[in-house]
Amino acid sequence: MTSAHSTAEPTRPLVPVLAVVGVGLIGGSFAAALRASGAVGKVLGVGRNAASLATARTLGIIDEAVSLERAGQEADLIFLATPVGAIATALGALKASLRPSTLITDAGSTKVNVVAAAREALGQSIGQFIPGHPIAGAEKTGPEAADPQLYRHRNVVLTPLEENKAADKVALTRIWERCGARVISMEPEAHDAALASVSHVPHFLSSVFMWQVATAQDSDLRMTLAGSGFRDFTRIAAGSPEVWRDIFLTNRPAILAELQEVKAALERAELALQGGDGQELQDFLERAALARRFWGSRSGLS
Amino acid sequence: MTSAHSTAEPTRPLVPVLAVVGVGLIGGSFAAALRASGAVGKVLGVGRNAASLATARTLGIIDEAVSLERAGQEADLIFLATPVGAIATALGALKASLRPSTLITDAGSTKVNVVAAAREALGQSIGQFIPGHPIAGAEKTGPEAADPQLYRHRNVVLTPLEENKAADKVALTRIWERCGARVISMEPEAHDAALASVSHVPHFLSSVFMWQVATAQDSDLRMTLAGSGFRDFTRIAAGSPEVWRDIFLTNRPAILAELQEVKAALERAELALQGGDGQELQDFLERAALARRFWGSRSGLS
Repeated sequence: MTSAHSTAEPTRPLVPVLAVVGVGLIGGSFAAALRASGAVGKVLGVGRNAASLATARTLGIIDEAVSLERAGQEADLIFLATPVGAIATALGALKASLRPSTLITDAGSTKVNVVAAAREALGQSIGQFIPGHPIAGAEKTGPEAADPQLYRHRNVVLTPLEENKAADKVALTRIWERCGARVISMEPEAHDAALASVSHVPHFLSSVFMWQVATAQDSDLRMTLAGSGFRDFTRIAAGSPEVWRDIFLTNRPAILAELQEVKAALERAELALQGGDGQELQDFLERAALARRFWGSRSGLS
Repeated sequence: MTSAHSTAEPTRPLVPVLAVVGVGLIGGSFAAALRASGAVGKVLGVGRNAASLATARTLGIIDEAVSLERAGQEADLIFLATPVGAIATALGALKASLRPSTLITDAGSTKVNVVAAAREALGQSIGQFIPGHPIAGAEKTGPEAADPQLYRHRNVVLTPLEENKAADKVALTRIWERCGARVISMEPEAHDAALASVSHVPHFLSSVFMWQVATAQDSDLRMTLAGSGFRDFTRIAAGSPEVWRDIFLTNRPAILAELQEVKAALERAELALQGGDGQELQDFLERAALARRFWGSRSGLS
């Protein structure tokens, strides 16, 4: 990637030409953050939705809407911000036009599956792909939601491959840091297990719960009496069904394993409730409350 | 209750003397809302915590800190804003000094148990107690969190008793409406079943999940990678362990019954995931997302 050497030429931005595939919240915010920090020259946008591309251009998030082929020919860095199920297709379409100096990364919420799909799609060019996952909000969608501050103080996980060049890993780390993010490197399997726990399982439980309330005979009455606790607990259940179906399917083993752990904990708490064991109930509630309060005070997220 | 007739005398407030037992978020906001709307004359505060009472007085939420006995002697309306486990004790202590014209209501999150405790504590005076439950946020605590707007556009459930006078029910409805709330009347059992579903079970699940993450061997790594979905899903788990232990114990049968329904739904979704059934996963996610978005657009809460 040429941009890794660009610090020697102050007139040249860190990423001369950026291509963002998917110009919604995640892709648009990445482009906006790099532009705001002066780290990018030209931004190309790729997407299936012509209206989103037009909006992104009007908002100044991208300079030009192009095909995947042109992105492969012209970009120094390609950022794949599509649902995980569409990453393999995008990589397959990029392969033919890809220059050897182009670096590719992604924002997919699962990594083991994305790495396998990338190996198959890119073949010998796999070294040009550094898998990534910025852990940043996705309640709002579309280019209108793009925010140059989205990644500030957020964690970005990279799961580099053996084939990645050291200079490219350094460059991508620097690029994310220009967005205000903190970069953490780990194995794809460790990423997927941790995310199954703190992201995928909560989404699964929130959606199951929401489904159960919505399909109850007296759901109208229930929802009339729902307050701010319900609001917070079910907020993630409003997320995109397609995006989350893909995440669940691509991280299935880790999610199923984690669900067993949660169900075991639920069984234990339920037994305490059945037995009217106030002390055990309070002990588990206290442990949970203290852990949540500590996390809240450290995460900068609440 | 004398205040029911006060509309004929414009110089007399709707509630000449209000006593609030528990001067935190719930009690303090009730007093502040009635004061802001000119519906209250004098506000007496009762509580175990001398510092909270002093703060409430400094903030102008209460005019004077008094004993339960004096509250019973002087108040036209007594608002019990203590944890549900403490309501029976407060009613027992009030009984001796209670004037026959005094109306009592509460803010307890469960109603069947509170009604039973109130019958035992008040005996023949039970008609003076109208059980209630304002469905309003409780993330912040203490008199500093009191907010005259807390009940605006929120639902307040009353579960009136056969022994309540019609004029008192009208008066209490009017009082809550002066706080900006909407009053809904229902049977205590219906209230407890609906709240088990939309409030108590979510809190139980959120706390169980938080406990499971906090006690995992790699909990530090997990929590480092937790994002805004985790934040929302676990926010309620930070709530007061004592308050929620009491709620769980006092509404045990309804919560246990509802948990069975949620577990059945979880089993079904888990089978779809195990089988890699993308269509069924998407169907359930779509139903949940649509229901949540619809609720969000109607509730005024998100």
